[in-house]
Amino acid sequence: MQLFEYLGLDKEDSQNSRMWPLIFNYEHANTTAYNPSIIYVDLYVTAITNVNEKAQTLTTQVKMITGWSNLNVTWKPERFCNITTFAAPKDMFWIPDITIVESIKTEFGTKESPNVLLFSDGYMVSFEILSLTTTCKMDLHRFPFDNQTCNITLQSSVYPVEEIDIQAFKNADWITIKSKDNNLVQGEWDLLNIKEHNSTTRDLSESHEMDQLIYQINIKRKPNLYVINIIVPVFFFLVLDVISFFIDTSGADKLSFKVTLLLSISVMMLILKDMLPSTNTYLPLIGVYCCAIFCLMGISILETIFVNYLMAKRAQKRTVETTATVSERDDGLRGQQNPPDSVRDQNEEQSGTLDRCGATQQTQREKTSLCWTREPRIIDWTFLVLYVITVIVFLSVLGKVWIGQ
Amino acid sequence: MQLFEYLGLDKEDSQNSRMWPLIFNYEHANTTAYNPSIIYVDLYVTAITNVNEKAQTLTTQVKMITGWSNLNVTWKPERFCNITTFAAPKDMFWIPDITIVESIKTEFGTKESPNVLLFSDGYMVSFEILSLTTTCKMDLHRFPFDNQTCNITLQSSVYPVEEIDIQAFKNADWITIKSKDNNLVQGEWDLLNIKEHNSTTRDLSESHEMDQLIYQINIKRKPNLYVINIIVPVFFFLVLDVISFFIDTSGADKLSFKVTLLLSISVMMLILKDMLPSTNTYLPLIGVYCCAIFCLMGISILETIFVNYLMAKRAQKRTVETTATVSERDDGLRGQQNPPDSVRDQNEEQSGTLDRCGATQQTQREKTSLCWTREPRIIDWTFLVLYVITVIVFLSVLGKVWIGQ
Amino acid sequence: MQLFEYLGLDKEDSQNSRMWPLIFNYEHANTTAYNPSIIYVDLYVTAITNVNEKAQTLTTQVKMITGWSNLNVTWKPERFCNITTFAAPKDMFWIPDITIVESIKTEFGTKESPNVLLFSDGYMVSFEILSLTTTCKMDLHRFPFDNQTCNITLQSSVYPVEEIDIQAFKNADWITIKSKDNNLVQGEWDLLNIKEHNSTTRDLSESHEMDQLIYQINIKRKPNLYVINIIVPVFFFLVLDVISFFIDTSGADKLSFKVTLLLSISVMMLILKDMLPSTNTYLPLIGVYCCAIFCLMGISILETIFVNYLMAKRAQKRTVETTATVSERDDGLRGQQNPPDSVRDQNEEQSGTLDRCGATQQTQREKTSLCWTREPRIIDWTFLVLYVITVIVFLSVLGKVWIGQ
Amino acid sequence: MQLFEYLGLDKEDSQNSRMWPLIFNYEHANTTAYNPSIIYVDLYVTAITNVNEKAQTLTTQVKMITGWSNLNVTWKPERFCNITTFAAPKDMFWIPDITIVESIKTEFGTKESPNVLLFSDGYMVSFEILSLTTTCKMDLHRFPFDNQTCNITLQSSVYPVEEIDIQAFKNADWITIKSKDNNLVQGEWDLLNIKEHNSTTRDLSESHEMDQLIYQINIKRKPNLYVINIIVPVFFFLVLDVISFFIDTSGADKLSFKVTLLLSISVMMLILKDMLPSTNTYLPLIGVYCCAIFCLMGISILETIFVNYLMAKRAQKRTVETTATVSERDDGLRGQQNPPDSVRDQNEEQSGTLDRCGATQQTQREKTSLCWTREPRIIDWTFLVLYVITVIVFLSVLGKVWIGQ
Amino acid sequence: MQLFEYLGLDKEDSQNSRMWPLIFNYEHANTTAYNPSIIYVDLYVTAITNVNEKAQTLTTQVKMITGWSNLNVTWKPERFCNITTFAAPKDMFWIPDITIVESIKTEFGTKESPNVLLFSDGYMVSFEILSLTTTCKMDLHRFPFDNQTCNITLQSSVYPVEEIDIQAFKNADWITIKSKDNNLVQGEWDLLNIKEHNSTTRDLSESHEMDQLIYQINIKRKPNLYVINIIVPVFFFLVLDVISFFIDTSGADKLSFKVTLLLSISVMMLILKDMLPSTNTYLPLIGVYCCAIFCLMGISILETIFVNYLMAKRAQKRTVETTATVSERDDGLRGQQNPPDSVRDQNEEQSGTLDRCGATQQTQREKTSLCWTREPRIIDWTFLVLYVITVIVFLSVLGKVWIGQ
Repeated sequence: MQLFEYLGLDKEDSQNSRMWPLIFNYEHANTTAYNPSIIYVDLYVTAITNVNEKAQTLTTQVKMITGWSNLNVTWKPERFCNITTFAAPKDMFWIPDITIVESIKTEFGTKESPNVLLFSDGYMVSFEILSLTTTCKMDLHRFPFDNQTCNITLQSSVYPVEEIDIQAFKNADWITIKSKDNNLVQGEWDLLNIKEHNSTTRDLSESHEMDQLIYQINIKRKPNLYVINIIVPVFFFLVLDVISFFIDTSGADKLSFKVTLLLSISVMMLILKDMLPSTNTYLPLIGVYCCAIFCLMGISILETIFVNYLMAKRAQKRTVETTATVSERDDGLRGQQNPPDSVRDQNEEQSGTLDRCGATQQTQREKTSLCWTREPRIIDWTFLVLYVITVIVFLSVLGKVWIGQ
Repeated sequence: MQLFEYLGLDKEDSQNSRMWPLIFNYEHANTTAYNPSIIYVDLYVTAITNVNEKAQTLTTQVKMITGWSNLNVTWKPERFCNITTFAAPKDMFWIPDITIVESIKTEFGTKESPNVLLFSDGYMVSFEILSLTTTCKMDLHRFPFDNQTCNITLQSSVYPVEEIDIQAFKNADWITIKSKDNNLVQGEWDLLNIKEHNSTTRDLSESHEMDQLIYQINIKRKPNLYVINIIVPVFFFLVLDVISFFIDTSGADKLSFKVTLLLSISVMMLILKDMLPSTNTYLPLIGVYCCAIFCLMGISILETIFVNYLMAKRAQKRTVETTATVSERDDGLRGQQNPPDSVRDQNEEQSGTLDRCGATQQTQREKTSLCWTREPRIIDWTFLVLYVITVIVFLSVLGKVWIGQ
Repeated sequence: MQLFEYLGLDKEDSQNSRMWPLIFNYEHANTTAYNPSIIYVDLYVTAITNVNEKAQTLTTQVKMITGWSNLNVTWKPERFCNITTFAAPKDMFWIPDITIVESIKTEFGTKESPNVLLFSDGYMVSFEILSLTTTCKMDLHRFPFDNQTCNITLQSSVYPVEEIDIQAFKNADWITIKSKDNNLVQGEWDLLNIKEHNSTTRDLSESHEMDQLIYQINIKRKPNLYVINIIVPVFFFLVLDVISFFIDTSGADKLSFKVTLLLSISVMMLILKDMLPSTNTYLPLIGVYCCAIFCLMGISILETIFVNYLMAKRAQKRTVETTATVSERDDGLRGQQNPPDSVRDQNEEQSGTLDRCGATQQTQREKTSLCWTREPRIIDWTFLVLYVITVIVFLSVLGKVWIGQ
Repeated sequence: MQLFEYLGLDKEDSQNSRMWPLIFNYEHANTTAYNPSIIYVDLYVTAITNVNEKAQTLTTQVKMITGWSNLNVTWKPERFCNITTFAAPKDMFWIPDITIVESIKTEFGTKESPNVLLFSDGYMVSFEILSLTTTCKMDLHRFPFDNQTCNITLQSSVYPVEEIDIQAFKNADWITIKSKDNNLVQGEWDLLNIKEHNSTTRDLSESHEMDQLIYQINIKRKPNLYVINIIVPVFFFLVLDVISFFIDTSGADKLSFKVTLLLSISVMMLILKDMLPSTNTYLPLIGVYCCAIFCLMGISILETIFVNYLMAKRAQKRTVETTATVSERDDGLRGQQNPPDSVRDQNEEQSGTLDRCGATQQTQREKTSLCWTREPRIIDWTFLVLYVITVIVFLSVLGKVWIGQ
Repeated sequence: MQLFEYLGLDKEDSQNSRMWPLIFNYEHANTTAYNPSIIYVDLYVTAITNVNEKAQTLTTQVKMITGWSNLNVTWKPERFCNITTFAAPKDMFWIPDITIVESIKTEFGTKESPNVLLFSDGYMVSFEILSLTTTCKMDLHRFPFDNQTCNITLQSSVYPVEEIDIQAFKNADWITIKSKDNNLVQGEWDLLNIKEHNSTTRDLSESHEMDQLIYQINIKRKPNLYVINIIVPVFFFLVLDVISFFIDTSGADKLSFKVTLLLSISVMMLILKDMLPSTNTYLPLIGVYCCAIFCLMGISILETIFVNYLMAKRAQKRTVETTATVSERDDGLRGQQNPPDSVRDQNEEQSGTLDRCGATQQTQREKTSLCWTREPRIIDWTFLVLYVITVIVFLSVLGKVWIGQ
């Protein structure tokens, strides 16, 4: 083909074009004042395959289109069968060394294309599908209702700002729309939008600046499964714990019921540990949520044990008194065939504490009608009210910070 | 060998054939009107090794056969000992740069073959075994009864539609049959069929179109193990929960029985979280199934506690009244040696609530035969009926959407 | 060294030997009829590092020795200090492009050797240690008592059967013995034997056949740990469930005991889900085993609840009757100081159901000695017998299929 | 460009500059005494992505800037349009072979830059983003309140100290500040500071020394999530265990309550096993913490069983005596209509042990008022006091070592 | 530099030195008798990063120093500024192709050094940091008190014993000391020592032998965390199980207590399954330990149920008899106002089985003082003694094999 020969691609020593990085630029400005070569970059996010909260990394598949002009390589289409574009091996031309600053792993998603596309007006385009793993500082405070903003910073590795100027080809809205249109695979994340802005940095040495193009990817977690699997069950356990106040105090049930709930919360918390990193400043609210509920339940168990103990103590004292009474009466009534009263006492004691008040009132008709079990119950009810208030206040404050923010 | 020399493969400067991508095409159409070179591709799926629902990726082993014609390389078999095919190093010829758009990892399954096969009529064939990881938008709504459709889109990275036209070599039925015949390793998926269709895209820049060949792989999950391990146990737990209404209400058993069931459901739900990504629009039905059953059980526990509380309350009131009655009678009957009645009362109270009605009827023969425990039992039964109806309606609707769709 | 020069390895244009794939063959048969070049392959399995049942892949370390003759490279040892073998860089010779069809990952276990070994009679030997991951269709029906047969198919990527003929160097028995001798690292698998046979395939295009050498690796799982950790505990739980029939029915123990057993089985089943893929035709027997035992236990819980309910119901009815009787007698005996009978009744009721029959017999001496609790107990015993028979039949059938096959 | 030609980069045989490693050095000191070439290195930690305690590895993303002077490559900026810096392909110059001694995996985080930056005064700068996995000897004694110090040792692989001298470009404070400023992604670690110091080693052979630059990275774990998820729950379980002494001893509750707590601690300990490696000298304090609490709870369960057993034993004896007493009295009082006493006894025995002392005092008014249940209760209380003291001493010592160190 | 030129490294055709593998050897022995070239190797283990028991692989970081003499490359230091060592690119010289036979993955830990070090006396040294994954036949019989011996076999891939002789440079003690000194990162393993010995193998073909240098790495597991997390808890559960014999048999507690212990052992066993491979000949003792304790507990549960059943049965019979007796007496004593006895009976039955003997003795004063509950208790005690003996014998035998071996 003549075009091939015209462009000089058949020569072995075509290394010129490979080695002069800025030749196209210098060429047309062979004076002391020269302009930076402009590299146009377009970066489409085509899949978000993984977000690792523990390692704080984001794995995406991106489509990156890089374009730049090389005034050495131009031709008149009408001279060559109206060919306006031409694919040529990559290694015959200078390729801008755009690197991604945050990347900890950059792999070609598919086989690397060996070609670049030349346009007749000296414009070159290279096309890559990359599988990127970038670091991303995540704020997990509001997990799982969190939005994350991850940057992908494109920067030349050595060329200063005077020599290379990285520009976005399409504007951010277009990229957002295209990324979303493009049958985006999102998994548990929603791509909100992609923003782009330019910046400079003084990286290599302090003497010269480098141009940066920063893509800001805003993603939003889809919280549904987390809500269903963690928040709702934990909340349910809390409700059950509150309701368990109405279980008969003296039953063996209540305590084992509450301990079981406590344990299930602690299992939930271990799952959190697997998902989230340990951070200092803003503890994830879901951790606060689980831990607070865990502690509330623990306290309510302590209270239950305390009330039970109090009741048992007083029941014991009362028994002493009652039996004393009975003994007295026994002494007095012996021979009067009136044992049933004391029998009743003992039996009633067995049949739970709820009916104890009534029983004592009846038994000690002639004595001060001091109800021994009243005090623990008052403690119980007071605690319940305080507990419910605490829970409501805690949940409403938390809910406000968590979702309503 | 003469053939080798005839084809000019012994020359160092045989770079011609390597560098001219479209030479064979342009050559025979050295006019302004030229036809695109046709690349025939066959893609057989030989193994489905992994489907990652969380990352939404599909890992397959595929056999890809790429054929194209290069009119520069032809010979007459009769002149060369009837040799019709000839293996030559890959790097001596232009190879089409077919990339897979969805791929996030393309690796050679085995060692890359260094050769292509030449046919005497200028047809070239390259053969590759690839280990592909592609993104695949999955709809997990009906998991584990779901079918998934994953695309593998073949596309040249730079050549526009005027220069390269990608065609399927064999038709889709053949490929499906061959893939299935080929001792396909499927693991937990059934390959339903493979479809293929052509398309064009405007990828690189808006100025020119590129040809695409899209393979659509339809796979169907084998749901058996999931049914046995998740759906059946959860269903069993629900049945046990319903049946637990018949457990004696006053026993400590009932509540701990129900809480244990609740906890096991919550464990099941955490397993779901590990398997499925959190999605927004269509929550996986299995999540709905587990969460709904979790909530139903939670509500039934609340009801149990409420009924127990009601019973205890009334039992307490009744005790007061009864003892009052007894006291009255005591007063009246004192001296008549009739204590056993009240003994019986107390004892009966211990012996559960079921026989309480009978007991009270007997005890309070002369009073209104108001059965105090009747109301809670009515609540209990009403709730049971509502509960069973809800469960049946829920399960039938869910089952319809889930499987019958 | 003269040998080096004699062989022409010092010349830059020694590309001849590299590029002519079949030169040695054609050379000695420069007529229209030529024989295929024979490639001798030996493949020793030196370690089985992983068998992934979910992905259906096998990871092995293999030692592969490939030998072929190249009549261009021969020398007379007596002329060169009796040197009979000579190591030369690989890239100076044509190397057969043997690929492994099932492979999804072929890596050099150690650094790739840059050399091949030449023998003075024109025989070349190449030696590789590979870390292979191959797909392997596994039948997990009898897991963990299963044998698996994995193929490793060696095939040239482009050369047809007329040009390359792959033969095993050593016979299968030798390879099996050597593989086992070679300090084989087996982990949880036993290498039974390695078989080898030749085959042809029509892979690339339908026009020509390709030679294949198929190694069939038979491995046997060592089931001990699975038996100890899954089968024995599940069996023990079943035994405990059967034995739990002898627990006093009225105790709160029985039900919670059974539910705990049920839950532990469900935990075991979730572990299965992690290990095994979901397959359709033959569900793994271990899944059937666990699921069946789970269901049996579930049914036995339902039965327990049902029997308990029946007893409670009847006990309630009986109480009504008994108390009626007692009341009658009360009426009759009032004034006869005979209250203890009814006291005894109530107390006996408390003291469990086992002694109820005796109690009623005594209480209702003058009435029909209908034992109210007999019917539930009959149900209980009938169920137990049926249950044990079902279990025995199920286990014996399963055991026969599982191990005895 | 003239500069390019001036520097001789257009010549194919520019291998000189590539091959002479020390040419710039030797050149200006072509005498017997020569100075080592100084390599300036700057290493910024930009992300800590993983710290694996089990494998004792640290994964970081680092930015490494390497600078050295090559007096062969200098130019006068004023002669070349005031160009002071120039990017040239890496493979045209000698690059120092700095290796990282601790590294077990060194990967380019992003695409490797093909260029180095030349300064007009003969200074060359190379810029790399590396994804490093280095071994790091960790002291997990105080986990999760631990600081770790990981070294990154830069060293030439072959050049001795006389030829290469590795120096830090910027001082350690600057690097620490810059690393922290640089939007450091830290996950669960806080970068405290980075120190640097020089050292020499006698690595390769004993005959010559090699220069080393050691970066010491001090990181501090953020312990919050571990505190919330492991330490707090375990502590809570301990508190509950202590409080459970106040649960009525005779109830079935107490034991199952304690066993449940014990089991949850054992679950926590298994989680530890997953996180931490098994080390000999200093067992992680968190392991000591959990194990000690596990043992304390176990002992408290043993004590509970022992006390219960003692009570039951004595209760049995007492029953014998009491009934003997009663029988005696029965004999004496028969005909005196005084049965209620014994009835009361039996009933009281049922109603727990707490009121037993009172009961016996009353029952055995005329006998020695030896309280049979007193001794177990004394044991119980003594144990409780000892237990609480042990717990407090243990926790305060542990806390001191753990945090206050 | 003159040295560079002297050594002829500036010539493009310096391929001589690269291609002649044995030139230095043949050169000085250009007769029919020649000596093998000696390759000195030093291998220091610098980190043990992973030991995978399931895959039976060992991952280490090793420092490997390879030295050999090349008499072609010598110079007189006094002629070249007293330079005694010189770094030259690796690809200009022949490098011995030492491979590691057991390796399944050999990676450069850090960037591969492009240079070798030349000494003026013709000695060449190459230095590598490798990240090795090697197979290692592990004997897990005594896990976690096990020592493992892993081999790293160095061998040339093609050169026979006549041409290459691999020798250890330093002796084994030195290497052990150096490896330990070298700030060895060991994780949960202690490096005991490294041994080295030479061997030959007949690998490639049977015609010639190859030299091997085998490093034997002896490592010892640090068992502390395993002891704390698995052995101690399981032992504690066993102790609790034994102690649970002293729990009041009739209580609901005992059975649920034991089942809970059983379940926790089964959870421990599942953890074992994750850690250890299933092996045939020597089952890991820790598996035997857990399984035996699991079975012992299971049997003790069966015994408990059996004894309970027996007691219930006899209690039932006794009730019949007693009530018969009572009835008789009732008949006889009716009118004698002696009901309390039977009341006492019933009540005593409720109050546990321990005091039953005493009770019956008293009740049946005039009858044979046959204690009905004695037999179950004898069974219970006999079982306990047998159980404890079994446990002690089992543990002492196991302990002897396990640790004392």
